[in-house]
Amino acid sequence: MEKPWSGRFGEETLPLVERFTESVSFDRELFEEDIAGSIAHAEMLAETGIISRKDARRIVAGLRAIRRDIVQGRFDFKLAFEDIHMNIEAALAERIGKPGRKLHTARSRNDQIALDLKLWTRKQAAALISSLRELQRAFVAKAGEVGELIMPAFTHLQPAQPILVAHYLLAFVEMFERDIARLGSLLDHTADCPLGSGAVAGTTLPINRKSTARKLGFARPTRNSLDAVSDRDFLCELAFCLSMTAMHLSRWAEDWVIFSSERYGFLDLPEKLCTGSSIMPQKKNPDTLELVRGKTARVYGALTSLLVLLKGLPLSYDRDLQEDKEPIFDAARAVTDSISVATAAVGTVAFNRKRLDAACEQGYLDATALAEYMVGKGVPFRDAHRIVGQIVRNCIAAGVTLSSLPLEELRAYSPTIEKDVCRVLGPRNVVAAYRSDGSSSPSQVRKQIAFWRRHLRARKK
Amino acid sequence: MEKPWSGRFGEETLPLVERFTESVSFDRELFEEDIAGSIAHAEMLAETGIISRKDARRIVAGLRAIRRDIVQGRFDFKLAFEDIHMNIEAALAERIGKPGRKLHTARSRNDQIALDLKLWTRKQAAALISSLRELQRAFVAKAGEVGELIMPAFTHLQPAQPILVAHYLLAFVEMFERDIARLGSLLDHTADCPLGSGAVAGTTLPINRKSTARKLGFARPTRNSLDAVSDRDFLCELAFCLSMTAMHLSRWAEDWVIFSSERYGFLDLPEKLCTGSSIMPQKKNPDTLELVRGKTARVYGALTSLLVLLKGLPLSYDRDLQEDKEPIFDAARAVTDSISVATAAVGTVAFNRKRLDAACEQGYLDATALAEYMVGKGVPFRDAHRIVGQIVRNCIAAGVTLSSLPLEELRAYSPTIEKDVCRVLGPRNVVAAYRSDGSSSPSQVRKQIAFWRRHLRARKK
Amino acid sequence: MEKPWSGRFGEETLPLVERFTESVSFDRELFEEDIAGSIAHAEMLAETGIISRKDARRIVAGLRAIRRDIVQGRFDFKLAFEDIHMNIEAALAERIGKPGRKLHTARSRNDQIALDLKLWTRKQAAALISSLRELQRAFVAKAGEVGELIMPAFTHLQPAQPILVAHYLLAFVEMFERDIARLGSLLDHTADCPLGSGAVAGTTLPINRKSTARKLGFARPTRNSLDAVSDRDFLCELAFCLSMTAMHLSRWAEDWVIFSSERYGFLDLPEKLCTGSSIMPQKKNPDTLELVRGKTARVYGALTSLLVLLKGLPLSYDRDLQEDKEPIFDAARAVTDSISVATAAVGTVAFNRKRLDAACEQGYLDATALAEYMVGKGVPFRDAHRIVGQIVRNCIAAGVTLSSLPLEELRAYSPTIEKDVCRVLGPRNVVAAYRSDGSSSPSQVRKQIAFWRRHLRARKK
Amino acid sequence: MEKPWSGRFGEETLPLVERFTESVSFDRELFEEDIAGSIAHAEMLAETGIISRKDARRIVAGLRAIRRDIVQGRFDFKLAFEDIHMNIEAALAERIGKPGRKLHTARSRNDQIALDLKLWTRKQAAALISSLRELQRAFVAKAGEVGELIMPAFTHLQPAQPILVAHYLLAFVEMFERDIARLGSLLDHTADCPLGSGAVAGTTLPINRKSTARKLGFARPTRNSLDAVSDRDFLCELAFCLSMTAMHLSRWAEDWVIFSSERYGFLDLPEKLCTGSSIMPQKKNPDTLELVRGKTARVYGALTSLLVLLKGLPLSYDRDLQEDKEPIFDAARAVTDSISVATAAVGTVAFNRKRLDAACEQGYLDATALAEYMVGKGVPFRDAHRIVGQIVRNCIAAGVTLSSLPLEELRAYSPTIEKDVCRVLGPRNVVAAYRSDGSSSPSQVRKQIAFWRRHLRARKK
Repeated sequence: MEKPWSGRFGEETLPLVERFTESVSFDRELFEEDIAGSIAHAEMLAETGIISRKDARRIVAGLRAIRRDIVQGRFDFKLAFEDIHMNIEAALAERIGKPGRKLHTARSRNDQIALDLKLWTRKQAAALISSLRELQRAFVAKAGEVGELIMPAFTHLQPAQPILVAHYLLAFVEMFERDIARLGSLLDHTADCPLGSGAVAGTTLPINRKSTARKLGFARPTRNSLDAVSDRDFLCELAFCLSMTAMHLSRWAEDWVIFSSERYGFLDLPEKLCTGSSIMPQKKNPDTLELVRGKTARVYGALTSLLVLLKGLPLSYDRDLQEDKEPIFDAARAVTDSISVATAAVGTVAFNRKRLDAACEQGYLDATALAEYMVGKGVPFRDAHRIVGQIVRNCIAAGVTLSSLPLEELRAYSPTIEKDVCRVLGPRNVVAAYRSDGSSSPSQVRKQIAFWRRHLRARKK
Repeated sequence: MEKPWSGRFGEETLPLVERFTESVSFDRELFEEDIAGSIAHAEMLAETGIISRKDARRIVAGLRAIRRDIVQGRFDFKLAFEDIHMNIEAALAERIGKPGRKLHTARSRNDQIALDLKLWTRKQAAALISSLRELQRAFVAKAGEVGELIMPAFTHLQPAQPILVAHYLLAFVEMFERDIARLGSLLDHTADCPLGSGAVAGTTLPINRKSTARKLGFARPTRNSLDAVSDRDFLCELAFCLSMTAMHLSRWAEDWVIFSSERYGFLDLPEKLCTGSSIMPQKKNPDTLELVRGKTARVYGALTSLLVLLKGLPLSYDRDLQEDKEPIFDAARAVTDSISVATAAVGTVAFNRKRLDAACEQGYLDATALAEYMVGKGVPFRDAHRIVGQIVRNCIAAGVTLSSLPLEELRAYSPTIEKDVCRVLGPRNVVAAYRSDGSSSPSQVRKQIAFWRRHLRARKK
Repeated sequence: MEKPWSGRFGEETLPLVERFTESVSFDRELFEEDIAGSIAHAEMLAETGIISRKDARRIVAGLRAIRRDIVQGRFDFKLAFEDIHMNIEAALAERIGKPGRKLHTARSRNDQIALDLKLWTRKQAAALISSLRELQRAFVAKAGEVGELIMPAFTHLQPAQPILVAHYLLAFVEMFERDIARLGSLLDHTADCPLGSGAVAGTTLPINRKSTARKLGFARPTRNSLDAVSDRDFLCELAFCLSMTAMHLSRWAEDWVIFSSERYGFLDLPEKLCTGSSIMPQKKNPDTLELVRGKTARVYGALTSLLVLLKGLPLSYDRDLQEDKEPIFDAARAVTDSISVATAAVGTVAFNRKRLDAACEQGYLDATALAEYMVGKGVPFRDAHRIVGQIVRNCIAAGVTLSSLPLEELRAYSPTIEKDVCRVLGPRNVVAAYRSDGSSSPSQVRKQIAFWRRHLRARKK
Repeated sequence: MEKPWSGRFGEETLPLVERFTESVSFDRELFEEDIAGSIAHAEMLAETGIISRKDARRIVAGLRAIRRDIVQGRFDFKLAFEDIHMNIEAALAERIGKPGRKLHTARSRNDQIALDLKLWTRKQAAALISSLRELQRAFVAKAGEVGELIMPAFTHLQPAQPILVAHYLLAFVEMFERDIARLGSLLDHTADCPLGSGAVAGTTLPINRKSTARKLGFARPTRNSLDAVSDRDFLCELAFCLSMTAMHLSRWAEDWVIFSSERYGFLDLPEKLCTGSSIMPQKKNPDTLELVRGKTARVYGALTSLLVLLKGLPLSYDRDLQEDKEPIFDAARAVTDSISVATAAVGTVAFNRKRLDAACEQGYLDATALAEYMVGKGVPFRDAHRIVGQIVRNCIAAGVTLSSLPLEELRAYSPTIEKDVCRVLGPRNVVAAYRSDGSSSPSQVRKQIAFWRRHLRARKK
């Protein structure tokens, strides 16, 4: 089979090498972008008179027919044609003849693949933003549902202070908002179109790069042809965005694996999100959560691969760059799937009020509020902290809670403690007493929920 | 020595554990940020009446004195006080007594360290932007200096097409511009202030978070206390920005290591940027370039560390997070130093016209232009490509260049080749013939240099 | 200050470059190895007549004096001398004059640093083996202490089957045994001595490499000079060994963070291994465990750095290699410290029988044993599994345990269930019923403990 | 479709979850190992009387038939059966009925997958050793072919000393020998069989683990069931071995990309190992070398993924572990293919004597030998080094080589230089003068070649 570069060559490629160097088995993922780019290119070639309008029309029609065939699974990809670009171009030439041999004018696979990947990256970023919005909606809806249900907040996985479950759920909404902001920045950072950079130096033909950039949704052409064909920053940046989302999902999954463990029992996942054991008949395992957590590993691996790939690579294009595709395709798929699964889990989870209430009674969650109460009575915080530390120590020894201590006993530690101390003892009282912006009081959390509802509604087209 | 949390404890910490858990040996890097945060906090506590104005004044004065002592190297950091926060607070209490014990009111080390790190991150981002601008200036100045000097552009490290050296140099300016854009996005992504989030749930005291946020240069407080104390996205994002800059620098270093190798000899680094060998007397090695390339490895390592650290960490704060500092401090230092070294190297490099000219005569750099010439005469590109491939193959066998072939011989391959073909043969002619935006023609490159001069001037204060 | 390579140079090194390229601020860690290597080298030079015996004696005496000074902190390391090698050699020349200028004969810093690092690696491997043995002893001792205490084994962090706590503890002993095996292999893989490879090609002087190899504890010299100076496999392999140990420690730490969380309460760490909170007076946090878990991140980062550093590095020595030291030094320190902390924690942990017993009553830990009981009565396992699954489902709905079901009720599911079923219901019965090698029955676990006691005794010289 | 664990469940798995949790699309790679394990297990179950001999015979026959179908591509893998284990077991039950439902007795998917992966790892290690031996043979054969061809050895990519090309080639043989040693250690480290560990705790049925271990080629069963089902050390270790081989290959590829670049021209790859450009007709690119170099990135990514996956994972089995397969399968494939390509490249490369000779005349490769010559005349090495440095500096200024200097001129630098100095000037003389073990002299290199021929012959069965 004739290679697109066979003119200069006297020997046939080794089959081993053909298999080793081919990319069509995975870069076919880019067919939409490749065809869109070729259509824009062909139209521009006609606009500038480099090819005739008639040739351009035949090329565009041919490309559309090929796209249709690919979508319908009727296109025969051939390894011998190396990559998606040559597969499509060869099919075009076969279908429409001579005009097909003109499509690659003033273009190289170097700028073509840079374009395809950038278009794909922008598509992924937009799709991820939209999935993350769905996930945020699921969290906000659940936060609205759970009302004033209380749970212990943990630091070091030890009970710290009482919080609203809704407040806990909204913490994840914040994380995904940052992920969305990063993806938005990625869209800003990829507003320039590499098409027309040629192999490395541009072209001697009178092409119009502003026209193709505009047709393909970019703000402008790239400024430097050498840089344009060797730039893969955008793939690294997408891999980083994906890594951050995967990391956030892994923290959520870890929490819920622990919270759904039999000892905690804070929440219950529906059976349809769980699987069982081939040997232990009683098991209902949170496999989906574990896989979400586990998939983080492959996403980090992809980021590592891309950065390693690019380190110390001489300018401009090197074939190493072919290795940029599989990791990023895989990572995007893993995160997209994980977001869907998380959205389903958040939507269907049930919190167990009895277990949560019981947990709130343990761990002296009101100790900090007690110390702050004493601050209100004029005790320096460090002294209040020390005094409450001693009270807690004695309570642990005696196996009692702070709110069960008689006032007299409390006053023995500090005369600043008065009757109104009952206002800050017990988890429900503590929660009600929070006053700072962003804290876990019912009024603060209501404000946050309202904010997110507005925010998410505004972003739903 | 009294720990800030000793009230509840009956046993002394093990010395091994004290050493294992301390962080002051490295988090002292944050003293400026820690003190700035404490001053803002103390002033706010007075504004809201939580402490007296007089106490606040004494606290602020005490903190300023401590800052002065640290800057002058007269501050005695103690491991037993664990971290920078407690070292400063303990010194304050020792110096000003009781008011010092009030500073930590309505604050936890959890929100304090989140604040310190975020302030530090913003400072680093701004400083990196400014260093990268200097580096861009060095490249643009050199591009202005080299005039119309020509070199081969490489793809696959094989000669591809002739380009202007200036065009080559500007490719790096593009990379660093993307790095700057990412750092700018990082500044946007870190506009919210975590101070006032307390340990995890906020506080029952009537603090004013908008006030501290404003004092510290943030746009607003964070929205969710739980998220605020466990968020380290910004460190990962800085590590990623650093990785990308390191990667770009490594590609530059790799190129120049090769270009300064004896076989290429394209450029010469001054001796003051090189070192010699302890055994081989003749050596002048480009060690600085190699170290720039090598330092990429530790920056990637830091990014890996941070992402690994955060994966699957339960909410909210966990002590694992203490491990976030050393990698990012180290990576920031490595990249900052590398940028300085690169700026010096770019400013002092000398290009070797003789070697560059000789290289441009090899490798059939005008083959693409010849094919494009034939396209201009109506030959479909694929056919032109094949024909030129055959011409080149025969030239290689005969050991001659394209421009040395008599017109008759060329016409034997294709009658479309006419006398005007000489316009696109030979490297200098090819360069002059480039027409596309962003290509390597003298007029395009002049435009690019002018653009960068304007752009960089506008960004110089 | 005169550089060891200044002869060929006309310009002074830039101060920025001097600071950027120096390594003595960290490679001083290698002083023991560097001096040992130099002593062996000097003695060999005398043996072969390259220098006089008298010169060699003065060199050796000078080096020993320098070693003493360094150990006692009285040696003045100078940045201008770049690295540990030149610092020592310059000091030697200053102290003993002309003979000192002969030490570097037939040697380059390239083979010298390869030697130093390999010696250091072997020392670290041996030290790690010995620390891991201590840690194993702590686990085995604790396993011996806890007797037949029972706990739930978890899969997916859900209760799976009852096991002995001792069995659980021994699982970690297995992991560290594999770590030790890997470190042992590393010692095997580093039995060849690079000294005498020169800069890259060997030397024209009649040195005796077998002699220096033997003196330094190696089995033989390396076979290929080019490879010897560019080989850093052993550092990567050490970094990998460290990563695996860190990973094992992180799994242990994760388990114990969860097990010591208030909801589980399976175990209690002594206060001397915990720290408190600056704001929450009641807290006792397992910080040491969290830091052990967290430090895994930096160890992985170091492995990443080393591998990235070496990728695509042209032969033979490149200055990038200087970047090999800090990550591996840091990783070795992190793991060594973590092992010590873990040994202390394992030695002092207290298991909470009440909480463990309570946990064993939940989660239907005897379900698998019931299914296997039915297999014993001739039911195909898949059918038994399905039947027990249904029993469990009904028990969950009714809120009862398997062992509380009357025999009649059980028989309604399968007539194969008879009176002797009580032998496999209830956690203690299940444990007693395990029969397979390596299982969690008391007799199997006793055997394992005995094995480890013997094994560890044998390895304590 | 009935799940193997459906008894306890009331709800159907969500299709999204089914797709998210399935592994059969990739773990089918393990079918050979899975069936081998099941056959050994079934035979053991019969030996111990847990199932009848007749049932075992039907199971074994059924499994063999399934294996045949899979090999011939006639087996219908079903996503709904989740994984390779259940696909095979379900097919078995369908084909042979009731006995098929007995196969999973005293076994869990937890020990089953641990077994499959360990068997696969051992198979890969053995195959990699054998491929690496082929690659070594190619290098040794080429080293034998090139005779006393000379090239410059590089440090810092600057000419250092003259060496034999054969010596250079043998450096890679050393690297692959270390890779083989590590793979050999991996085989030692994986000599224990996890089968029979059950889900986590072993089994109450009277199985014989020594029997299955022996049948499957292991030395013994694992000692601790808990550890056995959660151990994935061996996958990490394989990933590390692969990373090291990939790293070595990347260094080789980098060298040859540079050496085959037009400016060096040291070697020429056959066209059948190269590809061309779609736009530049003259190009012959070393794509295979670049891809070998690039594939290192994905192998490192796989190692990162595996280590990240395991960090902080609670004991024992967690579903995260399902993510262990794709990265390691991919990495093994990448390295295996790269070795094949490298073997082909080494076998067919042609060195260019003219270019090598020309390169040896540049760079003062004989400077070190001259300094060592002076050492032989009694000059301390440091002084000799300084003097030669000055000579070289003057030669560079004058544009002459060392060997072209008249004796008188040399003696002006040092009277120790005499007529016999010609013996060490000029690359060929220097090479002949090397004397140390492992150096690049013809006699040393002949010894090395002889060693490798013997060594490789001995290892060819």
